[in-house]
Amino acid sequence: MVEETNLLYEGKAKKVYETNDPNLLIIYFKDDATAFNGKKHAVIDEKGALNKAITVKAFGWMNECGIPNHFVEENSGREIVVKRLKMVPVEVVVRNIAAGSIAKRLGLKQGEKLPRPVIEFYYKSDELDDPMINEDHITAFGWANEDTIKKIKDMALKVNDCLKEKFDKAGIELVDFKLEFGFDNDGNLLVGDEFTPDGSRLWDKETGEVLDKDRFRKDLGDLIEGYEKIMMKISRV
Amino acid sequence: MVEETNLLYEGKAKKVYETNDPNLLIIYFKDDATAFNGKKHAVIDEKGALNKAITVKAFGWMNECGIPNHFVEENSGREIVVKRLKMVPVEVVVRNIAAGSIAKRLGLKQGEKLPRPVIEFYYKSDELDDPMINEDHITAFGWANEDTIKKIKDMALKVNDCLKEKFDKAGIELVDFKLEFGFDNDGNLLVGDEFTPDGSRLWDKETGEVLDKDRFRKDLGDLIEGYEKIMMKISRV
Ligand SMILES: Nc1ncnc2c1ncn2[C@@H]1O[C@H](COP(=O)(O)OP(=O)(O)OP(=O)(O)O)[C@@H](O)[C@H]1O
Ligand SMILES: Nc1ncnc2c1ncn2[C@@H]1O[C@H](COP(=O)(O)OP(=O)(O)OP(=O)(O)O)[C@@H](O)[C@H]1O
Ligand SMILES: [Mg+2]
Ligand SMILES: [Mg+2]
Repeated sequence: MVEETNLLYEGKAKKVYETNDPNLLIIYFKDDATAFNGKKHAVIDEKGALNKAITVKAFGWMNECGIPNHFVEENSGREIVVKRLKMVPVEVVVRNIAAGSIAKRLGLKQGEKLPRPVIEFYYKSDELDDPMINEDHITAFGWANEDTIKKIKDMALKVNDCLKEKFDKAGIELVDFKLEFGFDNDGNLLVGDEFTPDGSRLWDKETGEVLDKDRFRKDLGDLIEGYEKIMMKISRV
Repeated sequence: MVEETNLLYEGKAKKVYETNDPNLLIIYFKDDATAFNGKKHAVIDEKGALNKAITVKAFGWMNECGIPNHFVEENSGREIVVKRLKMVPVEVVVRNIAAGSIAKRLGLKQGEKLPRPVIEFYYKSDELDDPMINEDHITAFGWANEDTIKKIKDMALKVNDCLKEKFDKAGIELVDFKLEFGFDNDGNLLVGDEFTPDGSRLWDKETGEVLDKDRFRKDLGDLIEGYEKIMMKISRV
């Protein structure tokens, strides 16, 4: 049995523990909701449990699609066991539909379908507010090399193809999402971290209702109600 | 003789005229100085003449280095004759040293040497404040295809190698600069637009004195004094 030893890292939405197995970590999903780089904050009962369940489902789908990822198994209510990775310090965003920052940046209408899926990179730095970067920044500053970027883009598009279809079957539009990647001990590039409505936009296909963290960011309604609807819908797929 | 017919476009810093030759344009350098996307504005005597002279010198250097560009010949005091191009609507920035937006974005010290030259792309849109974009935005929205981006990056680095050496001989540090590219009638990709201290950072190598438009942006001293120093120094190379 995998057992937590010491807390390795506490982030805004998760805690990461080392375990009795040096190659495995335990991720604990907190109830904290933050937005605008922590400037808006709340503790929302059940959020951690729902995020964990949605992450488990999404990584299960990735497994079905043959996409290498860090997920090993579920642990207790709030926890998952994952392979310990050396993380690439870059957030990888895939967008199918214009919403949020890309709509503002490029003057697109919220909800406008993009000509094709678009990938963006953001440097993981709370201090700098996760600035958007390009591939040249990534290689020049040694955050990843060209080959890794190529693989990341390829995998991110595969995740998109995989999850878009699954969410579609669940009656949910996959608008955009954020992934993180890392290398395991054997040098394999895996999808790491989480897939949750904290880091994705998920809209009800029928009604257009926003089910993701934009409910919290923009005060669109009860967060948990949205996350519960997502969970209900995807549990059938 | 190439003669102006009608005004094709008036921008913030230049006027562009059609001529009696359908393949040639005349660019007139205005005395206007703008910053912060036009929010700060002044008319500065001699700026146009100096920008024209510096552009002529820089495109001359590109010719020496064998870099294809739109420059044809000088016209009157403020004007140059150029090949008419179909412009790629992207500003291409090459940076050798951290200054301005990259320093802020990535938390680097002003004046810090970058590990290697870094290329950035900005979408040319006054309305959107020239937002930073990545290669995926460029191809997804059809602003240029992958092959063109590859060529642009390659040419931009060649321009950097070429101009860095020339400016170095003139006692000037080429910190960063902006280029624009376009296609001529035969489908050749050429460097277009201008090379001026409006769109580059040029520091005195000995004293570190800022000689470029940051003098205007940040009220560091008389703009023309800086531009004249640049002209004096480069005229010897
Ligand atoms: N398999 C893994 N191995 C090692 N680290 C991981 C793995 N999966 C995720 N991580 C890291 O664990 C941390 C999870 O914490 P959390 O997401 O709460 O905080 P954060 O990323 O610092 O902040 P944010 O709230 O902006 O995401 C992240 O730093 C993430 O990169
Ligand atoms: N060889 C060329 N053929 C066609 N258009 C060109 C050529 N060289 C430059 N241009 C275009 O001419 C215009 C020059 O105008 P100017 O630089 O003043 O305005 P702007 O680019 O709209 O604004 P900004 O002040 O932000 O540069 C630009 O739109 C530029 O892309
Ligand atoms: Mg995180
Ligand atoms: Mg211009």
